[in-house]
Amino acid sequence: MPMEIRVLATPQAAEIAPLSTEDTAVVIDVLRMTSVAATALANGCAGLYAVCDIDAAHALAAEHHALLGGERQALPIEGFDLSNSPLAYSTACVSGRRLVMTTTNGTHAIQAVSAAGRVVLAAMVNLDAVVETVCSADRLVIACAGTEGAFTLEDALAAGGIISRLQTAGCRCTLDDMALAAGMLYEASRTDLHAALAQTRHYQRLKHLGMVDDLVYCLQESILQTVPERGDDGWFTATR
Amino acid sequence: MPMEIRVLATPQAAEIAPLSTEDTAVVIDVLRMTSVAATALANGCAGLYAVCDIDAAHALAAEHHALLGGERQALPIEGFDLSNSPLAYSTACVSGRRLVMTTTNGTHAIQAVSAAGRVVLAAMVNLDAVVETVCSADRLVIACAGTEGAFTLEDALAAGGIISRLQTAGCRCTLDDMALAAGMLYEASRTDLHAALAQTRHYQRLKHLGMVDDLVYCLQESILQTVPERGDDGWFTATR
Repeated sequence: MPMEIRVLATPQAAEIAPLSTEDTAVVIDVLRMTSVAATALANGCAGLYAVCDIDAAHALAAEHHALLGGERQALPIEGFDLSNSPLAYSTACVSGRRLVMTTTNGTHAIQAVSAAGRVVLAAMVNLDAVVETVCSADRLVIACAGTEGAFTLEDALAAGGIISRLQTAGCRCTLDDMALAAGMLYEASRTDLHAALAQTRHYQRLKHLGMVDDLVYCLQESILQTVPERGDDGWFTATR
Repeated sequence: MPMEIRVLATPQAAEIAPLSTEDTAVVIDVLRMTSVAATALANGCAGLYAVCDIDAAHALAAEHHALLGGERQALPIEGFDLSNSPLAYSTACVSGRRLVMTTTNGTHAIQAVSAAGRVVLAAMVNLDAVVETVCSADRLVIACAGTEGAFTLEDALAAGGIISRLQTAGCRCTLDDMALAAGMLYEASRTDLHAALAQTRHYQRLKHLGMVDDLVYCLQESILQTVPERGDDGWFTATR
C-alpha cells in the first residue's frame, strides 16, 4: 500500500478531516517553535511539553522543576527563562532539564493533531531525521502551524522538503492537493530558501525585530539528527 | 497604496479574517462552477443565483421561471435542467434565461465571502477579464472553493494566474503567504496545466467519470471576456 500523505495548510484544516490513531502526525513551525524543540532535545533537554497559555505553563513548570520557554507575538514572555530563539537553547542551558513551552502557533498545531497515534515535530533543521522516522507510516498528516491561523510559506516549504525526500528515497505515496503543492513549492525554492521567503510576513517580522541569526539558523536543512516525539505522557523526547 | 492581496486556500479560511465591504472578493471554482458561470453569462444567460440546497434551488427557479443547474459529487441532479458541465450551457440553452445553480463547493465559497463589497467569479477561462475588472481594487481577497472543504490545486493555480497577470501589468501589490504560494505554483505550472493537475484528486475523478472534454475546456486560459459580478439583489450578471 502506498503511504497516504496529506498536508494541513493550517491547524484549522484538521477540523474538516479529523485525525485518528492510525495517523502519524508531523507538526511544523519552522519559525520557530519546532526548530527550538529539535535544538533543545539535541542539546540534552530531558523532555518538552507544549501548553497554550502562560498560567498553565507556569503551573506545569513548577510541578516538574522545568525551564519555561516561549513567545507572544514573536517576543519573549516576562518571567520566562528562555525566549523562542533556538540559539538560546544551548547545552549549558537545557541539558538534563525539562522544558515547558507556550507559543502562539506551534502549540495550537500540536493540539489540533492530538488524536494521531504518533506525533513528531519537524523543522528544516531536522528534515532528514524526520523522514527516517516516519518513512514506514501508512498515513502521514503534516500539519503546518502557520501564524495566528493563517498559512505561512516557510512551513509549507518544510512539508515539501519531507515529501521530496520521501519520494527521492523511493517511498510510494499518494498525495493530497496541498501535499502536491508543498512539494512543488519546495522544488521551486530549495536552491535559495531565504530568497523564496524574503517577501513573507513572518520572515519580514523577525528580520525587522533583528532576529536575522534565528532566520539563518532555522533555514539550515538537516543539521540535527534529533526528532522530538510525543510519549504516552504527552512529553516530547528525542526518540533519535 | 499597493493593492493588498490575500488568497483563501479554502472557504473556511474566511473565518479567521472575515471580509468587509472594503474587500473585493474573487471566487474561484475552476472545476467547474465558476467556469459554468462565466460560460453561461457569455452565452447570454440573463442572471445567475447560487444557493446551497436543492429545495431552495427549486423554489427560487420556480419563482423566476429560471433554469436549474448544478451537481452533487460531480454528477447531475435529478430533475435539473442542466449538469455542471460548462459545455451544456450553450446559447441555445441559456440565452435570455435566468439560471439558479447549486453546487457542492462554489456555492459555499460565494457565501463565505458574502460580506465583501464586490464579488466576482473567476476561472481559467476568464482570467484576463477578471484582472481588468479588479485591477483598481484596494483589497483583493481571492477565495479558492476547493472540494468538500479541502484545498484543490486547480483553484490555487487560477488564483496564481490572476496574481501573475496583475504583477505583469505593473500593479503594485502586497501578497499574503498563500498569494505568494499561488503565484509560485502558477509560474511552475503554466506551461502545462494538465500535467500539473494530472495527479490531483478532482482532476482524476472527472477524468474517471469520462469528463475529459470538461477538463480540456476548463483549463483554457482567457477564452472568454465575461466576468460574473454580484448585483445588489444577489444575482450575478455579466458586467463585461
